[in-house]
Amino acid sequence: MRKISHGEALALLQKELERYNAFKKMNLNLDMSRGKPCKEQLELSNGIFDVLTSKTQDFGSPDYRNYGLLDGIPEAKKFFADLCEVSEDEIMVLGNASLNIMYDNIQRGMQFGVLDNPPMNKQKNLKWLCPVPGYDRHFAITQLFGFEMINIPMKEGGPDMDLVEELVKDESVKGIWCVPKYSNPQGIVYSDETVRRFANLKPAANDFRIYWDNAYMIHHLGEDTPLLNLLNEAKKVNNQDIVYMFGSTSKITFAGGGVSYFAASKRNIDSLKIPMSKQSIGPDKLNQLRHIRFFKDKEGLLEHMKKHAQILKPKFDTVNNIFSEELSDYARWINPSGGYFISCDLSEGTAKRTIELANQAGVKFTPAGATFPYGLDPKDSNIRVAPTMPPISELETAMRVFACSAKIAYFEKAASLI
Amino acid sequence: MRKISHGEALALLQKELERYNAFKKMNLNLDMSRGKPCKEQLELSNGIFDVLTSKTQDFGSPDYRNYGLLDGIPEAKKFFADLCEVSEDEIMVLGNASLNIMYDNIQRGMQFGVLDNPPMNKQKNLKWLCPVPGYDRHFAITQLFGFEMINIPMKEGGPDMDLVEELVKDESVKGIWCVPKYSNPQGIVYSDETVRRFANLKPAANDFRIYWDNAYMIHHLGEDTPLLNLLNEAKKVNNQDIVYMFGSTSKITFAGGGVSYFAASKRNIDSLKIPMSKQSIGPDKLNQLRHIRFFKDKEGLLEHMKKHAQILKPKFDTVNNIFSEELSDYARWINPSGGYFISCDLSEGTAKRTIELANQAGVKFTPAGATFPYGLDPKDSNIRVAPTMPPISELETAMRVFACSAKIAYFEKAASLI
Repeated sequence: MRKISHGEALALLQKELERYNAFKKMNLNLDMSRGKPCKEQLELSNGIFDVLTSKTQDFGSPDYRNYGLLDGIPEAKKFFADLCEVSEDEIMVLGNASLNIMYDNIQRGMQFGVLDNPPMNKQKNLKWLCPVPGYDRHFAITQLFGFEMINIPMKEGGPDMDLVEELVKDESVKGIWCVPKYSNPQGIVYSDETVRRFANLKPAANDFRIYWDNAYMIHHLGEDTPLLNLLNEAKKVNNQDIVYMFGSTSKITFAGGGVSYFAASKRNIDSLKIPMSKQSIGPDKLNQLRHIRFFKDKEGLLEHMKKHAQILKPKFDTVNNIFSEELSDYARWINPSGGYFISCDLSEGTAKRTIELANQAGVKFTPAGATFPYGLDPKDSNIRVAPTMPPISELETAMRVFACSAKIAYFEKAASLI
Repeated sequence: MRKISHGEALALLQKELERYNAFKKMNLNLDMSRGKPCKEQLELSNGIFDVLTSKTQDFGSPDYRNYGLLDGIPEAKKFFADLCEVSEDEIMVLGNASLNIMYDNIQRGMQFGVLDNPPMNKQKNLKWLCPVPGYDRHFAITQLFGFEMINIPMKEGGPDMDLVEELVKDESVKGIWCVPKYSNPQGIVYSDETVRRFANLKPAANDFRIYWDNAYMIHHLGEDTPLLNLLNEAKKVNNQDIVYMFGSTSKITFAGGGVSYFAASKRNIDSLKIPMSKQSIGPDKLNQLRHIRFFKDKEGLLEHMKKHAQILKPKFDTVNNIFSEELSDYARWINPSGGYFISCDLSEGTAKRTIELANQAGVKFTPAGATFPYGLDPKDSNIRVAPTMPPISELETAMRVFACSAKIAYFEKAASLI
């Protein structure tokens, strides 16, 4: 980042403040805080409402309008097993959100133990590894259950695996959060080496699990950036019990109105089904049927994702272009090839101030620190930008406000005013 | 029940065995084991598939195709608040099954505690009251969590309240399962006195909760048999925190494809939302919207239920008529005015044998004992009959097989052959 003198900083600050005050006069009310699909994306899936009608004759067998099928309808299990390249006894297709499955799996581990290990509630000083920056809703779960969360720096090819391999020698480390493809928020795709090191991980704790939240596995903005299949890599070294893989159609069809799935070794799945069978008679099978009949097969799904990309690519380009134009000297970011976010590292100690300034100008961003456990970014530097929801015109304005706010924070600091 | 001599028993047994062998030759394959709606019932709700289409313009605000609304869409909260006669801040409308909410509430109590009480996981010798006969899926949950389950005999107006009031003086008693209207399996509606005694219950444990599973609240076969509103009765005596009320549309629209709700004091709801907000971003709001637009209002819902009753009443009559014709001397049962089951008390020590005989003749029933905690009916007497699913012709055959099997078991015992 650029070094500037006190005097230069004051002059540049003055210029940006004028611009900022002009933004303030626009009485903006824009929200860039969450990774929500936009209206045009939602419209892409409206055909799903026509799949089942009162004229439909075939509702599956046994009738999916009735009770049963704890782990999903066979068509959905086949569909998502194909997509995840696992076998049908390694997958469950469940309710409307993978977050719910992750939470429930951790809760089951706390209460009943993972496989034949003692309940984690009866173990002490539980710890969890958290690649940072990462996803706030992941961290919120492990915080709720009282895990001590340990930051793992993200590198170009994924989490710092030297550190991961060192830390899992501690038996009280029970898991790690991973978004391995187009990671939230940086858009990093884990390298083959990273995936293989995960597949070969030998943690001291038998109840350690890799929570592999493949939320964006087919959410490319252009060409696919391939990711090795962790479960299959782990199987090669007979280490498959270490992996829990998650995904959903929340950002494929409807957010909160989709279906979620969970892939793991047959041994893990059989064990999880025991408490699950007391919690549920079965998921909403009709929504699963709607999804499968709408997409038909993996090709149908991938075609559908291209339409999402057409809508989203210009939005990501807008952010990237404004960053390039305005923030090259003052920030570092990755232009992602997929996913839902752009992660921006501002000059140290300026993230909170930047968000505060943007908020005061009527543009809401994900709070600074949200990408770190406990909401604490030790460098006060990282911001998650969610460009999907607003129309491009609003996005442009919002990102100009962001850039202006970031520069003000930078110049204030350089001029030693804060 | 009738007393018969050894010789008479042998003669009657011979006659029934001839009949039984004739049934066996029919190679029957009938399933009466679960309380599932039948195909004609499911067809009643097919209109729900046409409520939302690709031409729909209004998907709610903010758009229900997107994330949000942890406790349900406002229309659904209003709808079910009206139905349950509670206020909108006393209700949450959630996923596809109330069983899941019950399980999750108990798990939250175990892990985090109920309101400001210590986690139940940190308390010892936990106990739970179980009116018997009752619902096997309720008992399975409290068994999984390690509660000692205590049988409470059901009387004409509900559970034995003298016993309940006595047992809740024990601080380790944390809850009671209730199906207060058309109880599973007896079809008993709790009397006003019973509801008021529940509303006034003063358990030693602050974290005691009445799990009031009002699964069949509008599932009359003819006229409604009114039930007092427990939450409102409890409010009158400022005891509202003791109540958790549950329901769903599983047996109104689609089993597993409906929506569920939870009603409780605002204080309970606010407290439960804290961990819930980490577990979920929100339920499937589109299915909620479908349901509300399909029924429009409470009157629409009640009209819909009349159609269910028209289908179900002849089935219940069939069972009752066959029981009256064949089992008056050998069994006791209640002819229910609603719900999904008929509970039959056979002569002591003959329930298992009856089910075994019926199974061997190709008719599957809910296992004997299933209506008791741990699957243990101390008198080996109670059988739950689920008449809703089969067509009447099959139901007739199945119930003849049942009656024949019950009589064989009775005569075997009377003749001291078993």
